[in-house]
Amino acid sequence: MKVAFQGEIGAFSEEAVLALYEAAELAPRPSFEAVFEAVETGTVARGVVPIENSLFGSVHVNYDLLRTHDVGIVAEVNLRIRHHLMAPHGVEMADVRRVYSHPQALGQCAAFLRERLPHAEAVSAYDTAGAAKMVAERQENGAAAIASERAAAEYGLAVLAAGVESNHQNYTRFLALARAEEAEEEPAHTGQRKTSIVYAMRQNVPGALFKSLAVFALREIDLYKIESRPLVGSPGAYLFYLDFEGHRDDDPVRRALDHLGEIASTLKILGSYPKGRVVE
Amino acid sequence: MKVAFQGEIGAFSEEAVLALYEAAELAPRPSFEAVFEAVETGTVARGVVPIENSLFGSVHVNYDLLRTHDVGIVAEVNLRIRHHLMAPHGVEMADVRRVYSHPQALGQCAAFLRERLPHAEAVSAYDTAGAAKMVAERQENGAAAIASERAAAEYGLAVLAAGVESNHQNYTRFLALARAEEAEEEPAHTGQRKTSIVYAMRQNVPGALFKSLAVFALREIDLYKIESRPLVGSPGAYLFYLDFEGHRDDDPVRRALDHLGEIASTLKILGSYPKGRVVE
Repeated sequence: MKVAFQGEIGAFSEEAVLALYEAAELAPRPSFEAVFEAVETGTVARGVVPIENSLFGSVHVNYDLLRTHDVGIVAEVNLRIRHHLMAPHGVEMADVRRVYSHPQALGQCAAFLRERLPHAEAVSAYDTAGAAKMVAERQENGAAAIASERAAAEYGLAVLAAGVESNHQNYTRFLALARAEEAEEEPAHTGQRKTSIVYAMRQNVPGALFKSLAVFALREIDLYKIESRPLVGSPGAYLFYLDFEGHRDDDPVRRALDHLGEIASTLKILGSYPKGRVVE
Repeated sequence: MKVAFQGEIGAFSEEAVLALYEAAELAPRPSFEAVFEAVETGTVARGVVPIENSLFGSVHVNYDLLRTHDVGIVAEVNLRIRHHLMAPHGVEMADVRRVYSHPQALGQCAAFLRERLPHAEAVSAYDTAGAAKMVAERQENGAAAIASERAAAEYGLAVLAAGVESNHQNYTRFLALARAEEAEEEPAHTGQRKTSIVYAMRQNVPGALFKSLAVFALREIDLYKIESRPLVGSPGAYLFYLDFEGHRDDDPVRRALDHLGEIASTLKILGSYPKGRVVE
């Protein structure tokens, strides 16, 4: 099965793809838009994109793409983001003079670099996997990269230090997408399921959000996520992202969604899918 | 008044500082932690940090620092993020061979680069202002940077193309922080005010979020922002971020906060402050 993701081979998104689809045929794409288009046109069977990170928040651009593309969510996974210091075999910690990585990764590993490699220069690269690839290809003296374990394996680098990020509570949630038609036909999985929606309420309705949540609270449906997002250019107008327990076709969720449809100005059901596991 | 911010002179955070405090004495710091510490210890009078972006979501790390430091919010501003292509005077579009910027900025301007500079190489740098500084200092043939208007002015570069980002709905909300004591003594401003809080509800209370929102809805207090954040390592436990209208010392907000205190397991009032303007 062909699965699209954004980034280079060895990127965290690729780990998410393989955590979801062990036998996936990897289809890297240069942008999130390209991933959504590949799914929509049927060029690939699935697309995998990040939707929120435990330190850096929701990826609104992917929520926007979910709203505007004819795709549905069919699965999710929570991936622990672990950074490793890596270099060509034979290079030791004492030899490292330059460390290449994505600026965000370098920032997350700043304490380690300051303490263990105070004389090394931190050099920014486009992405973590790209930094590992470059270090492997160039074999430049004293060069190392900070990237994932998978990148080390992919580019034949040795891990000099594992888990060098300062905050270990770093998880990214990824969604697996299929064409909307196909997503709706997915068999209702056994086990715990959840549903994701995006909706807006009519403006100037006092307590609009509270009313929309009553739809779920009065039916004792548990919420897993809620987030408001101001609509730029429309003061007082908001989009709401909601994740809650249950499948769109089963009561009481089916009735709750009907009820929400009566009072919301727009509502898009993004998908019903099994609750994802956490990959440490 | 000394105001700390994260980044180099010419960074977007510096623009936010000057939008809030025209006569500020700029105190750049290498990290958000360092900004919070400078405010807490009184080394600076104010600190300014980003808290959410319209495309990339909330900056959870700064919410965490707000929870754990003895500081309070005293003001906010929404800054439009505009990217410009800039180079030393005399360089023309046709001469540009390499474009330096932060990877996120390069990504936001990818369509412009592909269309207008198909043969130029995009090279990542630590931050947008740093890229502008480097291009100005090195005077390397064919080098340009993507950064803010302020960075162009600061480093004496000419703007070759303005507003080159693909999505113009790019705004970042910044908060101004003072020591907690001082923030509480801030005079109650006239005009529209808002209050920000972070709280958690006792686990396994069905409809806990709905109950906590009832505290505000029943008193007809308008909400401006709501966001849940799962507590990593505590399944089923969430933090809630809430912004709503009114000042902490005035009814009905004072009573609503007392009420929330009765049912929440933790509650921190982050500050009451005037609603901020939008700087285009």
